[in-house]
Amino acid sequence: MKRDQALACVKEQLTEQRYTHTIGVMDTAVKLAERFGADVKKAETAAIFHDYAKFRPKEEMKQIILNDNKSLDVLDFHHELWHAPAGAVLVKTEAGITDEDILSAIRYHTSGRPGMTLLEKVIYVADYIEPGRRFPGVDEVRVLAEEDLDLALIQALKNTITFLMTKNQAVFPDTLATYNALVKERQ
Amino acid sequence: MKRDQALACVKEQLTEQRYTHTIGVMDTAVKLAERFGADVKKAETAAIFHDYAKFRPKEEMKQIILNDNKSLDVLDFHHELWHAPAGAVLVKTEAGITDEDILSAIRYHTSGRPGMTLLEKVIYVADYIEPGRRFPGVDEVRVLAEEDLDLALIQALKNTITFLMTKNQAVFPDTLATYNALVKERQ
Repeated sequence: MKRDQALACVKEQLTEQRYTHTIGVMDTAVKLAERFGADVKKAETAAIFHDYAKFRPKEEMKQIILNDNKSLDVLDFHHELWHAPAGAVLVKTEAGITDEDILSAIRYHTSGRPGMTLLEKVIYVADYIEPGRRFPGVDEVRVLAEEDLDLALIQALKNTITFLMTKNQAVFPDTLATYNALVKERQ
Repeated sequence: MKRDQALACVKEQLTEQRYTHTIGVMDTAVKLAERFGADVKKAETAAIFHDYAKFRPKEEMKQIILNDNKSLDVLDFHHELWHAPAGAVLVKTEAGITDEDILSAIRYHTSGRPGMTLLEKVIYVADYIEPGRRFPGVDEVRVLAEEDLDLALIQALKNTITFLMTKNQAVFPDTLATYNALVKERQ
């Protein structure tokens, strides 16, 4: 799918604010893909569609995840996570994106998973550091992402886990497992 | 086993510093058990023996855990965790403690587990807040433990996870699962 067509498709699904965020993720993902040797076109497409399901009703997302039967664990955790696996399904069925690399980058962009692909890492980090993001710790991740994608990802995961614990929210176990796998790889 | 006899038994296994810590845990565990309605005598015994295996060689602890076949997951994580499941075995075979409530409080005192018993919580928190402990965040847990054992435990788990991430160390998944279970219970 051409970029303009993809952007037009996703624009209908999002608020203006979320569309602006999506453009930021797209630009950042393209830069990261160029920097770290990921497929630039796939990074662009995954970024454009990563939040496709963001504004679907909770019940619809739940039903999609149940039917899909691949990411059921996420239903025991905060619904903020659900648009990622629901999005992977909808982007395939509604937008006609069939590339599994792109779909898995959408599927794991909120939770991570142990053994993330390069493209999954690019989208996760791009979503975290795009220029519109303003939260404590984001600048540190931006600096790390200039040089080392894994270090940026580790820091983003740590910040996310810490943030959730500060709010006394449960942490999706795969997010910790992603962190654990990455720090073990580097030891 | 009588208290003096238990203390004499464990003293042989520990450095002087660790024995002093053990006395602190014992005093604290007794207070917490009285405060929150746990079995005071079991709390005392579990506290006395909780670090029984602390100074065993890593290889011996590993072999004990392998033979025991109950806490194998811990072997993929920092060896600092190993003295707890190894201790549960040795306290039974060497010290003759057969009470399963006491043994499980020893087994889970470093990692926690989802669905912790009251006695397990008492020992975990006592180990964390005994008077000899000096580290950031311990006073907050001490204050919480005056009123609410679960809140104290949640805060201790959060501090532990944060501390490990600060050192870029892997976090044992059951420690997060313990935190997740407790915050979900309170929601």
